[in-house]
Amino acid sequence: MTAVVALSGGIGGAKLALGLDRELAPGALTVVANPGDDFEHLGLTICPDVDTLVYTLAELANPELGWGRRGETWTFMEVLERLGGETWFRLGDGDLAMHVERTRRLAAGEGLAAITAGLASRLGIASRILPATEQRLRTIVETTDGALAFQHYFVRLRCAPVVTGFRFEGAERARAAPGVVEAIDGADAIVVCPSNPFISIDPILAVDDVRAALERRRAPLVVVSPVIGGDAVKGPTAKMFRELGLESSVGEVARHYAGLVDGLVIDEADAALAAELAVPTLVTRTLMRDLDDRRRLARETLDFARSLSGR
Amino acid sequence: MTAVVALSGGIGGAKLALGLDRELAPGALTVVANPGDDFEHLGLTICPDVDTLVYTLAELANPELGWGRRGETWTFMEVLERLGGETWFRLGDGDLAMHVERTRRLAAGEGLAAITAGLASRLGIASRILPATEQRLRTIVETTDGALAFQHYFVRLRCAPVVTGFRFEGAERARAAPGVVEAIDGADAIVVCPSNPFISIDPILAVDDVRAALERRRAPLVVVSPVIGGDAVKGPTAKMFRELGLESSVGEVARHYAGLVDGLVIDEADAALAAELAVPTLVTRTLMRDLDDRRRLARETLDFARSLSGR
Repeated sequence: MTAVVALSGGIGGAKLALGLDRELAPGALTVVANPGDDFEHLGLTICPDVDTLVYTLAELANPELGWGRRGETWTFMEVLERLGGETWFRLGDGDLAMHVERTRRLAAGEGLAAITAGLASRLGIASRILPATEQRLRTIVETTDGALAFQHYFVRLRCAPVVTGFRFEGAERARAAPGVVEAIDGADAIVVCPSNPFISIDPILAVDDVRAALERRRAPLVVVSPVIGGDAVKGPTAKMFRELGLESSVGEVARHYAGLVDGLVIDEADAALAAELAVPTLVTRTLMRDLDDRRRLARETLDFARSLSGR
Repeated sequence: MTAVVALSGGIGGAKLALGLDRELAPGALTVVANPGDDFEHLGLTICPDVDTLVYTLAELANPELGWGRRGETWTFMEVLERLGGETWFRLGDGDLAMHVERTRRLAAGEGLAAITAGLASRLGIASRILPATEQRLRTIVETTDGALAFQHYFVRLRCAPVVTGFRFEGAERARAAPGVVEAIDGADAIVVCPSNPFISIDPILAVDDVRAALERRRAPLVVVSPVIGGDAVKGPTAKMFRELGLESSVGEVARHYAGLVDGLVIDEADAALAAELAVPTLVTRTLMRDLDDRRRLARETLDFARSLSGR
C-alpha cells in the first residue's frame, strides 16, 4: 500500500500505529490524532495523544508508565509541589520540553500541524502525525456528577464518575488540520486503531470535514476492535460501554462505527461472535505485547484492507 | 536593628543578603531585587536576580555554578536541544518550576511582588524578597556593537562587547512594587549589597519612587563595595568601569553613589585608599567564602550603619 491513514488516540492506538509505521514504506503513513484530550495546563498547551504517538513512533515512550518518555526525570514536579503548584497532571522534565516548545511556537503564530510535524521530524519519525484539527476541540465527559473537562475526568478523578454521554466543545467550528483531508482522499486504506471509540475516535469524527472525507472515501476503512473478550486492554472503554447501557462487545464496536466501517479486526477470544457481525471480519490475535505483535497485527490489518478493496 | 532594607543583584549581593537574613530577627530584612535582568524566554517570565536571592536565602543555590539550584537535573534542556529549541539560556528542571509557576500566576492576574513573596515563603524564607518594580523594566546595554538586551549581552555574548552606557527601558513608567517604599521609609538601615552598580543597583534606582524614598530616608545608607583591590570577585564590574573610562576602584564606587551613600565598606586590600574617600569608611574583609564570612560581614555592616545613624 502506498498511502495509509490511521485514526488514533493514545496508548493502545499508538501501538498499532507503530506497527504500521514499521511495516509501511517511510512516509506512507499519516496518523490523525485525537485532539479532544488536549488542554491548557500551567500556561502550556498539552496534546497528550499527539505526544504519545510521537514518543511511541520515535521509540522514546516510557514502557513502565504507558505514557510519557523513557529515561524521564521528575525534578520539575518535585519542585512545583514544593512551590504549591498544581501537580495532579504529571509532567516529566523531558516531556515538558515538548509542551514549552509547542506553546512557544503556537504563541509565535505557527499552526499545530506544522509544529507537530516539525517536532516529529526532529525525533526521526518518517510517518506524518497530524492533529485532526488545529482549532480548539475539547472532550467534555457528561457524568452523573456533572460535565467534566476530559483530563479532570480521566486523570484527576481516574474515570470514577459514571458516564452518561460526551460532548466535543468547539467541534462545530473546527476544521480539519492542513493535510488531513488530502491524506484521507489519497489513502489506499484507512485504519481505525484500537482506541476508545467515545473519547479517542469520536472527537476526530466530530470534525465535519474529516467526517465528510471519510464518508466519501474510496479506500476501505478497517476498525481494529479495542474490545477483547468483552473487556478493554487498558482504560475505561468497557466501563463506558456499560455505563451507557451497552454491551462491551465487538458487536457494539461494529454498531458504533455503522455507516463507516468496511471491515472489523477482532481477537480470537471473540471468534464465536464473528458470525453475528454485519461486516466482514478478520479474526486474529489483537493483543500487542511487543513490537513483533504490533508489526504482525499491522501487516494482517493491511492485508485485510487490501482484500476488502479488491471486492 | 528591627528593620533593614538591602538592595541587591544576583550572586555577589545574595551572599551578603544571606548573611543579613541570618543575623537579623526573622522578618526584619527586606531585600529589594534588581528587575533589570528579567526577561521573557520560551514564553516564560524569568527573574534571574529574584530567583538567585530566593535560592540563596532558602539555601538551595547551586554552589558549583553560582546560579540555579543545587541537585539540579537537565533533562528539559537536553530534550529541548533535540527538538531544535533555544538552549543558550540554561534552565534546570527544578528551576523551571519557578518560572512556570510564576508565569502562570502572572497570567492569572497576580502581581510579581505577591508571587515572589508566596514562592519565597513556600521555601521557608523569613525575609521579604521584593522586585523593585512590578512593571516591565529592562536593562539595555549600549555597546560598540549596538544596543543589546541584557541577557543577550550577559549570557549569549558572555559580556564580550565593549560597553558605552546603559538604558533602563520602561523605567519612566515603572512604579515601586507594593511594599518597597514602605520598607525603605521604615528602615533603620539601608544596605547596598556588593553588586554591580551599573546593571544590578542602578536599575533599582531608576524607579522614580524608589529613588525618591531613598533620597528622603532617615536611615543611613551603607554601600558594600563590589570592587576589591581594583577588581570584582565575579562578573563584568571591573571591565565595565574601565570601558566607561573610569578607574575600577573603591573611589569610583563611592562617586557612583554620591548623594546617596552615607558610608562605604571596603576590603582590607583597599585600606590605603580609605583616607582619600569623601565618605565614612569601614575597612574589613569583604570577600565572602563561606556562611561565617557572610554573617560576619553582615554584622559588621549593620554595626557600621548603626554607628552612622548615631551621628
